[in-house]
Amino acid sequence: MPELRHDPFQKRWVIISTERALRPADYEAPKVEIKGRLCPFCEGSEDKTPPEIMAFRDGTPRDKPGWKVRVVPNKFPALKIEGDLDRRGVGVYDSMNGVGAHEVIIETPIHDLEFADMPVDQIRLVLAACRERLNDLLKDRRFKYILIFKNYGSAAGASLSHPHTQMIATPVTPRTVAVELQSGKDHYHVKERCLFCDMIQEELAAGDRIVRANEHYVAMAPYASRFPFEIFLAPRPHRHSFGEITDEEIHHLAVMMKDLLRRIKVALKNPPYNFLFHTIPNIHAGPKRATYWETIEFDFHWHLEIMPRLTHVAGFEWGTGFYINPTSPEEAARYLREVELPPL
Amino acid sequence: MPELRHDPFQKRWVIISTERALRPADYEAPKVEIKGRLCPFCEGSEDKTPPEIMAFRDGTPRDKPGWKVRVVPNKFPALKIEGDLDRRGVGVYDSMNGVGAHEVIIETPIHDLEFADMPVDQIRLVLAACRERLNDLLKDRRFKYILIFKNYGSAAGASLSHPHTQMIATPVTPRTVAVELQSGKDHYHVKERCLFCDMIQEELAAGDRIVRANEHYVAMAPYASRFPFEIFLAPRPHRHSFGEITDEEIHHLAVMMKDLLRRIKVALKNPPYNFLFHTIPNIHAGPKRATYWETIEFDFHWHLEIMPRLTHVAGFEWGTGFYINPTSPEEAARYLREVELPPL
Repeated sequence: MPELRHDPFQKRWVIISTERALRPADYEAPKVEIKGRLCPFCEGSEDKTPPEIMAFRDGTPRDKPGWKVRVVPNKFPALKIEGDLDRRGVGVYDSMNGVGAHEVIIETPIHDLEFADMPVDQIRLVLAACRERLNDLLKDRRFKYILIFKNYGSAAGASLSHPHTQMIATPVTPRTVAVELQSGKDHYHVKERCLFCDMIQEELAAGDRIVRANEHYVAMAPYASRFPFEIFLAPRPHRHSFGEITDEEIHHLAVMMKDLLRRIKVALKNPPYNFLFHTIPNIHAGPKRATYWETIEFDFHWHLEIMPRLTHVAGFEWGTGFYINPTSPEEAARYLREVELPPL
Repeated sequence: MPELRHDPFQKRWVIISTERALRPADYEAPKVEIKGRLCPFCEGSEDKTPPEIMAFRDGTPRDKPGWKVRVVPNKFPALKIEGDLDRRGVGVYDSMNGVGAHEVIIETPIHDLEFADMPVDQIRLVLAACRERLNDLLKDRRFKYILIFKNYGSAAGASLSHPHTQMIATPVTPRTVAVELQSGKDHYHVKERCLFCDMIQEELAAGDRIVRANEHYVAMAPYASRFPFEIFLAPRPHRHSFGEITDEEIHHLAVMMKDLLRRIKVALKNPPYNFLFHTIPNIHAGPKRATYWETIEFDFHWHLEIMPRLTHVAGFEWGTGFYINPTSPEEAARYLREVELPPL
């Protein structure tokens, strides 16, 4: 019998469709490759990107070779950094200028060194660059939210294959985050506990959806997974803001992310994937600062979502906003837990 | 400057990103083809599907050749027709049995006769079969909603190429519909007018997003289009329920749908697409009937959404629930309006 499961964060139902039960080998992962062309992210092509915003370098000059991680503005930004929002009504509609930021974190100078294969120290640098850019963008009161995300493989939306992560700062709190925040607020209001912490406790006790867990982080297949082999990763102690992550926490996160992405790569034959961080909205953003701030620390728990792209989102999902998942999260977690990884 | 636009139905922001402005020729439409194999929907293969639920036939026997449109249960249904919902809590989560219906409307006995190329009379039969099945499923009080949708091409989620439309009946009102219904209710509560009717009036007056309009139907590129060349089609007079569509209205709808799908096929080189109908939820569904019924007639206006699948939904969209659209709806409408169609 298929089962409907409810996601308490997104307040969303998902169909776990056992009739269509699929195992890893049943998914034909779309080819990850992207057509070769002159890569603007490679070392030596620094003049092919807009001037860098920051980089980790050993004393080498800006926009020249000799960097480990490099952050540049997106050459074709979805949102633009200059200008005011100019909020306005247009008949029954509403409009504002597309003010925001769109940056690219070039994860490595090496063209074909995938995230899953990078040394932990390199992943630490990528995460440290994300933290630094996030905290800088949070100072801009026009930006309500900053999303850190990665598209890996063309079927996941990547247009360049050189390893990179992106950040987009938006002038509105995105609906997805607003819903999670409201769920957290509602729960805290009644129970004075974090909804995410409660869920993590329950998942650790049950165990069957846990992929990996240690004293620092927990990775699980969500109870109401939308997609097969989706992973939710969160710090085990309560942490509301990714911007406040410590160097030590970054180290443990890098170890965990590498492990999970290797599991996905081996179990699902290097599929395209997306990952994205959800952290609290910008508490400094105007004009609604005060309303957020009072209880926000326990209203939200930052987390990372990893979504292998194995199924098509089709008419039913667009028309309803709920999802048909042909692999149960319990089975997905078991496969990912048990997959044999080659030695490092 | 990119622009943020707000959709008053879905209460969703969209980024119209002029920096990335793309014209029809810039989109590389993913191949529509699906691997050939023995087709269970072809005439003569009636024993390859579950027994038919209904068909338009000229006196030929059930589950035999000699039909024009044939409706069968999906062989691998996302939801199952038998059983009770058995709603239950599971720790912090909620679960219920996956009770529902999942039917396939086989649009024609001819394997390669695409919707856009069918005679109007054939499209009328398809729409009449949708109406008949919708009204039958609405009698089941377990079903809160019935979605009629089509996936065309494998990138749009189709797994068989023989022309078919699908229906899924769900035991919860899908979030997407619930949000539209609430928007309509809020508007009607204040203004005692239908939000959709107001929008249609305004669009007809402005004109620049209209693709086609006559006294029966209006087709437009939505102000806050999520996807390039997305179309919103609605009856021009106020109509809340697709189940109550008359034969004459079906005729005019068939003419309009054929015209629009031909425009998409020619302008965008036969891209994969999804279409889906949004109609009112099942007012007979238990146990909340009374709450809906009072004002629902003016809270909702049925409509069809057509979405060519030209862009990838990637990390940003998953992480935020808002969309980056590289073609403005004004430009999309103009292209579709002006495309030269070959003679019929």
